[in-house]
Amino acid sequence: MDLASEILDLGRRARAAARVLARLSTEQKNTGLRAMADSLDQQRSTILTANASDMEVGRANGLPDAMLDRLHLDDRRLAIMADGVRAVAALPDPVGETLRAWTRPNGIEITKRRVPIGVVGIIYESRPNVTSDAAVLCTKTGNAAILRGGSEAIHSNLAIADALRDGAARAGLPADSILLVPRTDREAVRHLAEMDKYVDLLVPRGGQSLIEAVVKHARMPVIKHYHGVCILYVDRAADLDMAVSLAINTKTQRPGVCNAVETLLVHRDIAATFLPRAADALWSRGVELRGDPAVRVILGERIVPATDADWTTEFLDLRLAVKVIGDLDEAVEHIETHGSHHSDAIVTADAARAERFLNEVDSATVYWNASTRFTDGAEFGFGAEIGISTDKLHARGPMALEELTTYKYVIRGNGQVRE
Amino acid sequence: MDLASEILDLGRRARAAARVLARLSTEQKNTGLRAMADSLDQQRSTILTANASDMEVGRANGLPDAMLDRLHLDDRRLAIMADGVRAVAALPDPVGETLRAWTRPNGIEITKRRVPIGVVGIIYESRPNVTSDAAVLCTKTGNAAILRGGSEAIHSNLAIADALRDGAARAGLPADSILLVPRTDREAVRHLAEMDKYVDLLVPRGGQSLIEAVVKHARMPVIKHYHGVCILYVDRAADLDMAVSLAINTKTQRPGVCNAVETLLVHRDIAATFLPRAADALWSRGVELRGDPAVRVILGERIVPATDADWTTEFLDLRLAVKVIGDLDEAVEHIETHGSHHSDAIVTADAARAERFLNEVDSATVYWNASTRFTDGAEFGFGAEIGISTDKLHARGPMALEELTTYKYVIRGNGQVRE
Repeated sequence: MDLASEILDLGRRARAAARVLARLSTEQKNTGLRAMADSLDQQRSTILTANASDMEVGRANGLPDAMLDRLHLDDRRLAIMADGVRAVAALPDPVGETLRAWTRPNGIEITKRRVPIGVVGIIYESRPNVTSDAAVLCTKTGNAAILRGGSEAIHSNLAIADALRDGAARAGLPADSILLVPRTDREAVRHLAEMDKYVDLLVPRGGQSLIEAVVKHARMPVIKHYHGVCILYVDRAADLDMAVSLAINTKTQRPGVCNAVETLLVHRDIAATFLPRAADALWSRGVELRGDPAVRVILGERIVPATDADWTTEFLDLRLAVKVIGDLDEAVEHIETHGSHHSDAIVTADAARAERFLNEVDSATVYWNASTRFTDGAEFGFGAEIGISTDKLHARGPMALEELTTYKYVIRGNGQVRE
Repeated sequence: MDLASEILDLGRRARAAARVLARLSTEQKNTGLRAMADSLDQQRSTILTANASDMEVGRANGLPDAMLDRLHLDDRRLAIMADGVRAVAALPDPVGETLRAWTRPNGIEITKRRVPIGVVGIIYESRPNVTSDAAVLCTKTGNAAILRGGSEAIHSNLAIADALRDGAARAGLPADSILLVPRTDREAVRHLAEMDKYVDLLVPRGGQSLIEAVVKHARMPVIKHYHGVCILYVDRAADLDMAVSLAINTKTQRPGVCNAVETLLVHRDIAATFLPRAADALWSRGVELRGDPAVRVILGERIVPATDADWTTEFLDLRLAVKVIGDLDEAVEHIETHGSHHSDAIVTADAARAERFLNEVDSATVYWNASTRFTDGAEFGFGAEIGISTDKLHARGPMALEELTTYKYVIRGNGQVRE
């Protein structure tokens, strides 16, 4: 079978499975999920053997240690994966929920009901646990999943998908609820992205070039999980202890993630008192500060001059761009122009200015006196997360079970016709 | 300015206007809308002169009468247009609504708040009233609108947009809230579709080739308003009087619209009694029936043999494909395979079979004992409608004010950091 036919066949099978999945009860789906978890436990040695192959290839190809660590599976990580599946089984099922119901003057009853989307394609890189995480969130919400992971993890992904499919089938769910694309080349992504007849939604999770390739070819909706250039603004009315604590937390608690802060904006009235304290705290944690001329005047030569590119760069590292600004409007303008509309925060004791910031910054999540690191499905209390959407439509911010559903209108009458 | 720069300039201006619009109160927006309605009244003669030019060109180009009628404006139609704007001003404003609010164990307060989308591009054909309808729905929801109408109505559209912009500006709204693309070639659509930096959503309303062109090039979300191959299924437990009445209404009340029925499925147990009655009623209203062999056995030679293409064709005309089927499963299978997932109905007195149909047919609207012609924003009680989405994400079915909004998470804390 050529590549195009192979992908088309996956699409057809996923669509057929989705139709069955959409009709299952919550209990049937949960039974399936628990069987999938058990299957991961039972097929542990097969999965670890497959993972060992990936690790061997990865080492031979000179993958960096950080990537090898993300790829690596062991008994503990597999147990966490299986427990994650059981945790999803225990979450409430959003499917079937009545979102709104009303009766029209002519007597027709309209119910807006939450239903599965259908077939969801997830395109991701390296970490094999995404195979399980994404698949089970789709199963829980009655969607068939077409998964396309990275080449580094292909053996692990195939073994995990096989285990999940076995578990699903044993519990009476369609095995094709979960389909892994066995090809890891970009051509496979293109065919998937063009198959709008069988795929209702694509969720690319990965680097910019992967996402660009998906956006370029996709004929169906895409929910993107781009990078975050998150910004912390310390207002002149800020509690400076709180501001230092938030600067440290948003930059250093886990610098390699999308909701870490990349730019610190400081109001000029408090710059001379705040910046030295913040700089000492950040330097002591190994953060490199890049500043505009006003910052360098206050903090001196240790500050690397910030380039234009620094204001729009996601460092994903212990590096922070710092700028002194004149007022709230300038802060909002900077964030709207240079930020990525992901997560931005103001530190201030002035409620009126805080509300203006919360209103005027057009980002998925806007914070007043709290860390941007809370932009996360678990921190929001969603119980699970398929990613953080940087798009505006359908899903914005942490994307969880509800965002894996859509709705339909169910209308009941007794013969009403339109006049 | 070349075309690409011209479209880019429209995008920049729309984005700047959107930022202002998003901050306006409901009363400020409503004042603007009323001023826009007044401006349509005041600039009546300018608009009618422009429309006369379009009509003249249209007649010279041999436009069919039906198209000329859709293009034509007069005092009455302009008054209806202005009243439509005032009606939108009177509708509730969805923006600012709290969709959900909760407090996490660490004390951060999360509010999911409804906000404008930003910049919405609407691409449409012929009817100049869409210029006003689409623009004011966007203004009401705090979105800037970039409108691109068809070449036949270009003078009318420019005059209407000018009137609306004047009214907006007089009331203190940004004139660039409403921007009309002065170019009607497909290249302009392509540039618009690629400008994801400045356009957050595209809504194409028109023929298949227009929508295809938008889908092919678009880098931002697109909500499609495709055709409807709507299907009516008459179950063996149907009230046959009701079934005849629904067949007539769904096919003949307005055959040229997307929620009219194109296919009639009839359960074999009642085919011999139902079909002759339905055929007489439909024939007497000038409907041509195309049938499968079983239908021809019952109704005879007057039935045109249905081709494979007839089951997936939107006739938009007094033509109906008719098929005898064996059971509910076969009906659902036919609808899932051949329908367009727009609006489908079952006629039956059997509640259990009705519920199965409502659950298993994956369409935007599914009906039990009511006409598919109710798939419409006004009939749903939404007060206004920008179209009927045949997509599944963000907006499905009638798309009104709420569907022109998105949400953001507003988070308030007192210094919380992530551990």
